[in-house]
Amino acid sequence: MEIFDVSYKHKILAFTSNFFAEKKSEMSAVNQWGIDVSERLLTFMSQGKMIRGGLVLFLYEAYRGELRDDVVGVAAAVEILHSSILIHDDIMDNDVLRRGKPTIFSQYQSLGERDNFLQSYNFGMSMGICAGDEGFFLAFQMLCLVEDRSVRQTIIELCLKEMRSVVLAQMQDVYSGHAKESVSEEEIEKLYRYKTGRYTFSLPLVLGAVLAGQSADTLAQLELLGETVGILFQLRDDELSLFGTKEVTGKPEGSDIRENKKTLYRLYLFEKALPGQRKELEKIFGKGEITPEQLAYVRELIVDLSVQEMIDKRAQNLHNKAKDIIMMLDLAEVSKVHLLRLLDYISERKK
Amino acid sequence: MEIFDVSYKHKILAFTSNFFAEKKSEMSAVNQWGIDVSERLLTFMSQGKMIRGGLVLFLYEAYRGELRDDVVGVAAAVEILHSSILIHDDIMDNDVLRRGKPTIFSQYQSLGERDNFLQSYNFGMSMGICAGDEGFFLAFQMLCLVEDRSVRQTIIELCLKEMRSVVLAQMQDVYSGHAKESVSEEEIEKLYRYKTGRYTFSLPLVLGAVLAGQSADTLAQLELLGETVGILFQLRDDELSLFGTKEVTGKPEGSDIRENKKTLYRLYLFEKALPGQRKELEKIFGKGEITPEQLAYVRELIVDLSVQEMIDKRAQNLHNKAKDIIMMLDLAEVSKVHLLRLLDYISERKK
Repeated sequence: MEIFDVSYKHKILAFTSNFFAEKKSEMSAVNQWGIDVSERLLTFMSQGKMIRGGLVLFLYEAYRGELRDDVVGVAAAVEILHSSILIHDDIMDNDVLRRGKPTIFSQYQSLGERDNFLQSYNFGMSMGICAGDEGFFLAFQMLCLVEDRSVRQTIIELCLKEMRSVVLAQMQDVYSGHAKESVSEEEIEKLYRYKTGRYTFSLPLVLGAVLAGQSADTLAQLELLGETVGILFQLRDDELSLFGTKEVTGKPEGSDIRENKKTLYRLYLFEKALPGQRKELEKIFGKGEITPEQLAYVRELIVDLSVQEMIDKRAQNLHNKAKDIIMMLDLAEVSKVHLLRLLDYISERKK
Repeated sequence: MEIFDVSYKHKILAFTSNFFAEKKSEMSAVNQWGIDVSERLLTFMSQGKMIRGGLVLFLYEAYRGELRDDVVGVAAAVEILHSSILIHDDIMDNDVLRRGKPTIFSQYQSLGERDNFLQSYNFGMSMGICAGDEGFFLAFQMLCLVEDRSVRQTIIELCLKEMRSVVLAQMQDVYSGHAKESVSEEEIEKLYRYKTGRYTFSLPLVLGAVLAGQSADTLAQLELLGETVGILFQLRDDELSLFGTKEVTGKPEGSDIRENKKTLYRLYLFEKALPGQRKELEKIFGKGEITPEQLAYVRELIVDLSVQEMIDKRAQNLHNKAKDIIMMLDLAEVSKVHLLRLLDYISERKK
């Protein structure tokens, strides 16, 4: 199932493609890498679900009807920002695959291998850092195209603030992945709120509403809706990382276990495991690699110890809360129905 | 010698420190890393010469007299942007020292070692990428504080455009460092123009003048002055990397040779070397490490083959050109004298 009207994705890609075309001569004046990076960014973006950009467009349309070009620009900018964050994340996690395709740094690494560079990993990593940086600046250039000066300023500031929080949450995530001590339920939910909830849902919802000139009350409701849906989304993401196959998720299986990500699953699992089981789990989590037998063992234990049940209960609560907020929004019924369908999709998504 | 009045540095550091203090509660809401990063950024900044921020303030003051708080904010933002670029560069070059102090990623690596992380390099590198990203967004938040709306917009767009060029130039620099084929004189000067000239000099000069409400003609003159001085600055930087001691430069000796940086020195050296000498040089450049004997050999050859003479001649031309532009600027004599002194400092700088 497509989350949004497929025309959203087309519009965002068309805007981005035009934007890059307009920058072409400026980029070429420096060297060939501007065009190289922009082409990779466009392909990388197009492989994603574009939830964030879609939400901007959906919210704007729900309030105002016809889309404007600069609104599509904000949606595109949000997608480029997200791509850039992922490009950097993939370097940190040393993930060579995303959405079943080589990640940006590993694309450059291959380029280095093709050209017989002695240190092709270093080359790939360096070019990947630059590609993410370039994406950040390109995205803010897109935001500068918002027509209304005051709305433009608000949008730039909202994006800067949220991007800062995401980066800080990512630092916590990196730290937790390396650290041995366990993380409390409260800290995990905070990480989910900042790393996924606010960034993936609150920000795009609020941007769409700001562009549509909505009130501060509405923005606050959307912010809360975004956080709620976001945590739900993250729980499903964790589930997919644990139970999804590489074919379905496009990511290496068990990568969260390999990287010792401090998920709610992991917390509950370690809490409910008997001493012998816990000892076994400690041999598996965060060891840099994982065998199919070890993955099967973790999966079985999650079901046997009712961890899945606990997660499902939490997810149900979040689902209900999100539903209540949607029903209270000052929006046309048809838009509410759409949002409820999106909520169902997130609750049940399989990839 | 200090390049600028020492009060510039104090003002920039005070502004930055206040700005971070104002963001403290917002940062703490996410986690402890915001404060951690901002403290490291402030220390890192304070260890630099702050040429870029100083130039913003100098130019503004030259045209308008009394400094304004938001002008200092732009100077601070330019310094934070530069710090963030350096933080990422140090990861790419695997430089653990800068200005004689541990670089940001190596600080985090030490933190990982302290906490007994199994992969402390990966931890340091990941946190370093995040710290640079955070710096970018913080800097643009500072730029959002410029009071005049239209000036603010111009400044944000100028910075975004220049940052994009710097990143593209950095990609070329990374590529050239890994590649075996030589780079033409034209390409090297282009790299110097975008990686150093425009970014270190043109941008700050133009920002100061934009804040002071100067004409397009003046901005164009300053842009050209910046490019000219910037190439000169880069030539001296290359010289210091080759001939400076670790104590003076604060960087590991011979790092440009180790990384096979495609400098003008390298180009001329390989061009003028006899076949036997070239064979010897090929064993030294880009091999990941360099012995004191090898460094001494390269240094001797640079002098013996008159490479230094060629560089000095080029530097003298640039110096003369820059002097001519300064004399033509519509500025008070006292400011011109200051700019000429800055030019002399750059021509003769020892660190």
